[in-house]
Amino acid sequence: SPSEREGHSSTQSSHRLLAYSDALISIIATVMILPVAHTKVEDNEELRESVQVLLTTKIAVYLMTFLIVTVAWAAHILFQVIVRIDDCLALLNLACMMLITFLPYTFSLMATFPENVLGILLFCGCVMVIGIIQSVIVLYAFSRPFLLNEQIQISENQTFYKHHILKVIMRVPIMCFFASIFSFIFFQLSYVLLAIIIFLPYISQCLKWCRSKAIQVEETPDSMLFYTYLPNEPLSKERVEAFSDGVYAIVATLLILDIEDNVPDRTVVQKQFGGSLIAALQGYGPEYLAYFGSFATVGLLWFVHHSLFLHVTKATRFMGLLNTFSLAFVGGLPLAYQLTHEFPPNSHNELEAIQISCVIIFFAGIFQLAIWVVALYSEQETLHPYVRYGGREHVFMLAKLALYPCIALGMFFLTCILSKFSAPIFHLMEITVPFAFLVLRILVRVGLALLRLIFCPDRPDRRTI
Amino acid sequence: SPSEREGHSSTQSSHRLLAYSDALISIIATVMILPVAHTKVEDNEELRESVQVLLTTKIAVYLMTFLIVTVAWAAHILFQVIVRIDDCLALLNLACMMLITFLPYTFSLMATFPENVLGILLFCGCVMVIGIIQSVIVLYAFSRPFLLNEQIQISENQTFYKHHILKVIMRVPIMCFFASIFSFIFFQLSYVLLAIIIFLPYISQCLKWCRSKAIQVEETPDSMLFYTYLPNEPLSKERVEAFSDGVYAIVATLLILDIEDNVPDRTVVQKQFGGSLIAALQGYGPEYLAYFGSFATVGLLWFVHHSLFLHVTKATRFMGLLNTFSLAFVGGLPLAYQLTHEFPPNSHNELEAIQISCVIIFFAGIFQLAIWVVALYSEQETLHPYVRYGGREHVFMLAKLALYPCIALGMFFLTCILSKFSAPIFHLMEITVPFAFLVLRILVRVGLALLRLIFCPDRPDRRTI
Repeated sequence: SPSEREGHSSTQSSHRLLAYSDALISIIATVMILPVAHTKVEDNEELRESVQVLLTTKIAVYLMTFLIVTVAWAAHILFQVIVRIDDCLALLNLACMMLITFLPYTFSLMATFPENVLGILLFCGCVMVIGIIQSVIVLYAFSRPFLLNEQIQISENQTFYKHHILKVIMRVPIMCFFASIFSFIFFQLSYVLLAIIIFLPYISQCLKWCRSKAIQVEETPDSMLFYTYLPNEPLSKERVEAFSDGVYAIVATLLILDIEDNVPDRTVVQKQFGGSLIAALQGYGPEYLAYFGSFATVGLLWFVHHSLFLHVTKATRFMGLLNTFSLAFVGGLPLAYQLTHEFPPNSHNELEAIQISCVIIFFAGIFQLAIWVVALYSEQETLHPYVRYGGREHVFMLAKLALYPCIALGMFFLTCILSKFSAPIFHLMEITVPFAFLVLRILVRVGLALLRLIFCPDRPDRRTI
Repeated sequence: SPSEREGHSSTQSSHRLLAYSDALISIIATVMILPVAHTKVEDNEELRESVQVLLTTKIAVYLMTFLIVTVAWAAHILFQVIVRIDDCLALLNLACMMLITFLPYTFSLMATFPENVLGILLFCGCVMVIGIIQSVIVLYAFSRPFLLNEQIQISENQTFYKHHILKVIMRVPIMCFFASIFSFIFFQLSYVLLAIIIFLPYISQCLKWCRSKAIQVEETPDSMLFYTYLPNEPLSKERVEAFSDGVYAIVATLLILDIEDNVPDRTVVQKQFGGSLIAALQGYGPEYLAYFGSFATVGLLWFVHHSLFLHVTKATRFMGLLNTFSLAFVGGLPLAYQLTHEFPPNSHNELEAIQISCVIIFFAGIFQLAIWVVALYSEQETLHPYVRYGGREHVFMLAKLALYPCIALGMFFLTCILSKFSAPIFHLMEITVPFAFLVLRILVRVGLALLRLIFCPDRPDRRTI
């Protein structure tokens, strides 16, 4: 066993610590949709206006949280350098996690009081303390080299690694320090700085990548291993999968939390329905339909994600970014669910709620498709032979990924034309899609045969699927 | 890569499906505390009475959900037999998960309308459909033997395995079938049957185990491999850890969801505090303290769990049951957090809320200690040499596990004596415990040296830690 080999009985593999932190981060990112979903929209208001109010504050908080915790998740690559931990490191990491889970609160303060500097200061303070704790973790680990991974342990320039990692870790806290100083002078600038911070790894390193492509700079391959933030830097596929699973699982769970509210009140059943529970529950029919439909959608989006990553052999940072965008929309599904069954049937609001749902599903699906498209550009490294161009699963994979965007798009236009039947159409779609996936393989085969028949009827039939 | 070896390109390792299902199950088990925690307790009511009302309905729903989904989690051992899946199995499993996440709703119906048979019928219906889907999964997998694990694939009596697994899977649905029939005749009996179902694996197999100990029956070792439900049957340690991580992570996240409500209203700040956000936030001081204290408690309980399972080499089913009990109390921590900062300072209700918190922390800790005690009974198989009797980490491990129960117990009695200072004492404890863990190693060493000095001052000093 690996714990037999270790010389220091009090050190431990960092694997489970990383898994726990990942779970915490994926849940905190997703659960922030709840304050958005639970905002009560009055029936007499126009949904469009309410949604605009939502957009300016709560959805902004949700998206910012989602992005910042994804940055935090990526920064946890730290524990791929530090592969063994002791009690002290475990406790320091827990302190870090405590501050990361506190960040959404500071966002809420910012969104509610945008002109007050306190929210910015609190956020910057948290990030700076996180940076200091992470630096302490790095210094502590490098002072006890048996905690590091073997590659660095045997490397001669350990101090180079230490400084490189410290530099990357302290970049964000230092920008936060300037943001907090600017907040006293001209606080609008602080927001610009904060927005830059969130996209910092992508912006700065995209520029670097472009430059390296243009001038053909030769970088030391040694320093490329960790923390380059290049778009083609490999990410741990297992961690991407685990993070995505966490998001899909919590989204599916939030749905049942809402349906819990649909247990009728005892007194209402007694007075309005003469004690008949069945009669009382019949009114909740649309809710059940919406619940099962939404669960099917979340489950199938997970299924598509699962099918895709099964054939991905290496995940890059750019694919990870697209995955984050897809997940951010998946996290919006509880909001879609809440909206679709909140309004009276055939109202204008219901129609718009369903259109919003279609948009959310469309983007969740299209970003999954984008991961696949990006992977195809370097298919030799990132994809399994079966799903490369000409592979026998290639077309089927494409069909799987394109199914949800196509259905969502079709549904959107159908609801525009047949505005009266929007809700039944939407729920019908959600319930029938699983069957579409079951027969998809046959459909693709038939479709390919037809295409072949139309465009090249002379060529002999070649089974591709 | 493993996907290279497979003959059938459309089959996949079931590993990620299992991980996703586990995440879903652990989250659904924990998130059901939210309806309990969000029950508003009025200030003028006596807390004790309100808690009694809670106990009869919502806490019962929470505990039943937690236990039943843990049973569902254990039943997912199915995917240790079926190690490869195809699209069809993945979709069938998602249908299963959809029904499992729907179970809490049926519990709510039962708890709200205990005398109505509809709740029981819905629950039994769901369980029966789950049983049918799981049987279909088994039949489908055994009709395609390349999906099964190698041991069964090469085994000659595949049909024996099939029947054994089907028998175990159908046991609960058949009991539910009888429960639903009884519900028309004498519905109180149905509840007894349902309670038996939840503990069925433990009750029936404890009896079997006792019998086998008494009569020394020789069982075929072949059939012992899966689904024996014996208390000493090995559980996958990785799955126990992942399930526990899910619960701890969601509990930590639920805390921040509540603190989101503590963003003051714009109009209130304008009117009552003259626009000063700092002045408005000062009123929330106790909430921040309670948040950080509760987070520290959850984090450290995870830390203790992590330290324990690091030295566990094999988890048994009985250890899994004790772990479930511990987690059920950990899941109650958001309720404790909600209660402790809801009441005016120095009120009788606040005192009782803190005592409830102490009880919850005590039981969460004592069941962790129980896992360790049970493991010690068969330490040769279940524990790492370092932590066995006489091992150099033995006493330190004991101190780690005993710390929280001792502190919670001490706190409980302190709040009884110094009832005026209960809240400050409680928060002080929660904040200082992390430091206690840091100096625990030194404390244990000093304690051991003292004991040695008192009881056997003649013996030469032997370093054990």
